[in-house]
Amino acid sequence: MPTVTAWAAPSATEPLVKTTIERRELGPHDVLIEIKYAGVCHSDIHTVRGDWGPKQYPLAPGHEIVGFVTEVGAEVVKHAVGDRVGVGCMVRSCRECEQCLKGNEQYCLKGFVDTYGSVDADGTITQGGYTTHIVVDDHFVLRIPEAIPFEAAAPLLCAGITTYSPLRHWNAGPGKKVAVIGMGGLGHMAVKFAHALGAEVTVVSQSLKKQEDGLRLGADHYYATSDPATFETLSGTFDLIIHTVSARVDFDAYLQLLKVDGALVNVGAPAEPLSVAVFPLLLGRFSIAGSAIGGIAETQEMLDFCAEHGIASDVEVIAADQINEAYERVLASDVRYRFVIDTDTMR
Amino acid sequence: MPTVTAWAAPSATEPLVKTTIERRELGPHDVLIEIKYAGVCHSDIHTVRGDWGPKQYPLAPGHEIVGFVTEVGAEVVKHAVGDRVGVGCMVRSCRECEQCLKGNEQYCLKGFVDTYGSVDADGTITQGGYTTHIVVDDHFVLRIPEAIPFEAAAPLLCAGITTYSPLRHWNAGPGKKVAVIGMGGLGHMAVKFAHALGAEVTVVSQSLKKQEDGLRLGADHYYATSDPATFETLSGTFDLIIHTVSARVDFDAYLQLLKVDGALVNVGAPAEPLSVAVFPLLLGRFSIAGSAIGGIAETQEMLDFCAEHGIASDVEVIAADQINEAYERVLASDVRYRFVIDTDTMR
Repeated sequence: MPTVTAWAAPSATEPLVKTTIERRELGPHDVLIEIKYAGVCHSDIHTVRGDWGPKQYPLAPGHEIVGFVTEVGAEVVKHAVGDRVGVGCMVRSCRECEQCLKGNEQYCLKGFVDTYGSVDADGTITQGGYTTHIVVDDHFVLRIPEAIPFEAAAPLLCAGITTYSPLRHWNAGPGKKVAVIGMGGLGHMAVKFAHALGAEVTVVSQSLKKQEDGLRLGADHYYATSDPATFETLSGTFDLIIHTVSARVDFDAYLQLLKVDGALVNVGAPAEPLSVAVFPLLLGRFSIAGSAIGGIAETQEMLDFCAEHGIASDVEVIAADQINEAYERVLASDVRYRFVIDTDTMR
Repeated sequence: MPTVTAWAAPSATEPLVKTTIERRELGPHDVLIEIKYAGVCHSDIHTVRGDWGPKQYPLAPGHEIVGFVTEVGAEVVKHAVGDRVGVGCMVRSCRECEQCLKGNEQYCLKGFVDTYGSVDADGTITQGGYTTHIVVDDHFVLRIPEAIPFEAAAPLLCAGITTYSPLRHWNAGPGKKVAVIGMGGLGHMAVKFAHALGAEVTVVSQSLKKQEDGLRLGADHYYATSDPATFETLSGTFDLIIHTVSARVDFDAYLQLLKVDGALVNVGAPAEPLSVAVFPLLLGRFSIAGSAIGGIAETQEMLDFCAEHGIASDVEVIAADQINEAYERVLASDVRYRFVIDTDTMR
């Protein structure tokens, strides 16, 4: 089994350190990828710190992965050596349930295998993208169009698809008014996509600190929740609200921003349960929903859409030894808008 | 102004008594209806008792009204003297907002005028159907097909449309699995409609007490929540759950009964806010929504659908002097499935 360099957490309470992990030998359907960049997702931090349940250590996180194919198994058909490719949050699913057959691998009825910290088909625990190489089943490897710079492509594999999928599913487009709650890693992608899809886009953020960025990225309007007039001004305005914040918020207040038949879709996951008054839901036929990443075909569609519309993530590239510092800055919302690790700094 | 006999609450804390109320003179667009039957809706009780906010008294409730047209204003076009007609929860809306123009008068952006206890265009407080006569704008008067017995038609104007509308909006039909939570006035209509629309119907009730009725009305399956196995057995089963119960329930448990992309639609309105864990919403792209009655054209469609499919409400006809006793029985869920007042007993 090939040994590769990685940055991994030795436990839930220690910082990440440089170490090595094992990758499996290439199976007939596997692709070996030399990783070039790996995005730092907020959920990496929660997962390695055990906030979402106990994990096995050492654990190398990272599910926003781009690199080059350097070897392929005998039966690989989608990719070839030299291809620019990416891997997102999933590395395996059953491929035979109703949802997998529909292309909804993210809703696989048997549960998909997470890119890191999950039990794989062979019983080993998956290790993520904060490493120099990864071995992944062909089906879960995406093609990264040449038009997208590599480092700016990495976050598309999670932050990108997580916002693109609900915008498409709930028909964001011309004539539709879309609000994006929160201007972080997810929010800044939601603004770009909603704008490119032709919707009228409003950012609703805690303050006006990132207003200039929001308007530059494609927002038509920008409001701060710190201004009490915001909720009154925007009452009954939106067909769709993409809620990217994982802090607990006043759902009742946000629901009042919806038009009749509007939907408030959560892509962030607050740890505490939401509390919602039922009667107002009835009075506007409002929906509260959730959405998780996207299917593999849809992720490829999103990447191709990005290439066509000149969309990528706004990133700050860091060296591997800056990961722990970057974690603290992510927790402080001090990043515009995604840290991406240059994995050459691991070699 | 014509004075008519009514049963009305003198205050929020007193039983309903026989009294008189005033009806307006017929305007050019008005229809005078001699009421034959008026249904007793759970919300009548909440409203007259001030549970949903202060009201002006005396107040005659009732928004499930059927009778004959006895006079029409000069410009009335939809109805003629002698017509069998009905009136539901709405007697006026702006008729010019986006929602009214779409036929969604129930979501009128200026707010519709409730059949009782609401301020009408002329500044008077509307009085409902527990009376011998009512004057209503032509547009809000429905045609009751001959095929539907009068007393069994009354509850269609609220309980009927409240369940028909979400079943249609969320596409209940062949190949779809629909659960109906609760077997009361709303639930028993939801079962009939979902079955007639071609869906596979499951009732989920507190006990098996009404199982025989449920299966007779069209349910394919019947489960009790008192059996701990129910939630496990039905996990991941339904495309649509129509939640008719106004008591607070464990939404997290019900959401687990949905298939991917399923919706849990509230038509009952618990007074307390619902509490829902967000992460499971994401994992199944579930929606929680609400739905309120239905538009006027849709209500007519529902009545015609009932005539075509031999559907009506299961009712217990009472005399006017039994109203207060009926209220207690409604609160105790002791009715199968709707009380209907024979207004001839008021004369």
